[in-house]
Amino acid sequence: MTTTKAPPARHELAEGEILPPPPPPLVPVERAPRRSPAEEARTLLESTTVGALGTLTEDGSPWASLVAFSILEDGSPVLMISTLAEHGQNLLKDQRASLMVAHPETELDQLAHGRVTLTGTAEKAEGELAERARESYLAAIPAANAYERFGDFDLWVLKPDRVRWVGGYGRMDFVGEEEVGTAEADPTAPEAARAVAHLNDDHADALLAIARKLGGYPDALAATCTAIDRYGLDLRIEGPRGISPARVGFAEKVSESGGLRGATVELTKRARAQQQA
Amino acid sequence: MTTTKAPPARHELAEGEILPPPPPPLVPVERAPRRSPAEEARTLLESTTVGALGTLTEDGSPWASLVAFSILEDGSPVLMISTLAEHGQNLLKDQRASLMVAHPETELDQLAHGRVTLTGTAEKAEGELAERARESYLAAIPAANAYERFGDFDLWVLKPDRVRWVGGYGRMDFVGEEEVGTAEADPTAPEAARAVAHLNDDHADALLAIARKLGGYPDALAATCTAIDRYGLDLRIEGPRGISPARVGFAEKVSESGGLRGATVELTKRARAQQQA
Repeated sequence: MTTTKAPPARHELAEGEILPPPPPPLVPVERAPRRSPAEEARTLLESTTVGALGTLTEDGSPWASLVAFSILEDGSPVLMISTLAEHGQNLLKDQRASLMVAHPETELDQLAHGRVTLTGTAEKAEGELAERARESYLAAIPAANAYERFGDFDLWVLKPDRVRWVGGYGRMDFVGEEEVGTAEADPTAPEAARAVAHLNDDHADALLAIARKLGGYPDALAATCTAIDRYGLDLRIEGPRGISPARVGFAEKVSESGGLRGATVELTKRARAQQQA
Repeated sequence: MTTTKAPPARHELAEGEILPPPPPPLVPVERAPRRSPAEEARTLLESTTVGALGTLTEDGSPWASLVAFSILEDGSPVLMISTLAEHGQNLLKDQRASLMVAHPETELDQLAHGRVTLTGTAEKAEGELAERARESYLAAIPAANAYERFGDFDLWVLKPDRVRWVGGYGRMDFVGEEEVGTAEADPTAPEAARAVAHLNDDHADALLAIARKLGGYPDALAATCTAIDRYGLDLRIEGPRGISPARVGFAEKVSESGGLRGATVELTKRARAQQQA
């Protein structure tokens, strides 16, 4: 169950001004699909193997530490933690834990990018769960092969009871943990940054055609791609009326990695066909 | 006060074997200087503006989240946090907090790299402290100019009472918080990764000479640089007896950014002079 909160009302600036709204489209456009908050959360969880763990020290104070993790089929994170480490000691005393995973992006304003926080109870993996957890962890973190044979590492599975996704400034949601368990990670996520750079470097004309014919901005003068995913692309459109964000959806959801190219080519052809019509 | 713990005793492997020790140097070498744990912690804190914050939810459970931060002269982190955000709500109710900052390195095994955890009490900055905090934060995080005028952001200063630095597998230390306050960040840290790549790509012969003449391994067959800092470089030396790590110190501590080049040139000249002697 997703409880999508409305975005917070526009903040007032100190002087009592408000930010001007971006220029609206000049022609009506269909609402383009986006990843759901659960898909965003799952995509983030599968985009990296490094996150930050929050645990509790002996006196109940917070302790933030670096961890490597993998994700089980059901969306639960797996950790392999030394009992010699602070967070290992913490977990042995109190199993409440929180894992934060951020979009692996360091050059830009990272707070504008996605991150997800899970909280719940860590369970020391035993029996069949330990086998699944171990397999998942070693597949995700090859370096663990070197240290797992040291006797002091425990496998923990974090069973989430709260999942909060933040997409950047003003985009956020609580996501049901069972939803994250069944959501599919976006298979195109690993190639997205490269695709954005390629579109902006080599296909400015295609982006402009898309903005004019499919984005609702026939007066666009320039367009850059700010993000891409399996459902479509986000544009930053410059025109005589100012700068607007826009979203343009693909004809179909991309179902495999490597599929962004075909989907953007289709979009470009469609925009150019309308240009000539 | 630093309490440098001895590294943990070598772990036994599952089968009861122990890892073979690396081949020792064949000629005695001086112990090369390294950054102190406090310098490592301070360098990490000044190497990035993004970290993970641990706070407490209403029921005292841990909550891990992404934050941007800056560092005051005395080593205290500054945060600017919305009261609408989870961690903002958490801090208003319980000021205990923990900040984890990891080496900004995502390609490699991140657990082999440095990270530091601070814990303490967050203080809402008022008066003169708020001015210093604001100046520091806006200088470090230019994007904050856009959101600080929204009314819902508070400036917090985290006063650390515990600082733990982990340098990778088996290198770790608690560091006195006042030590971190007076320690100097390594001015060469931002150029270190590039310097390591350059040495390995273009100066394998120089590294080999350094390993043979200054590193204590006259039988070295190849050497790569694994890390560099203001005090010297870390080598991975391959020879007929196996693979060894070694540390070679610069003639003097590098005191300015851009100084790694001169220091490694001096090291290379010294090694080559001994080669010809």
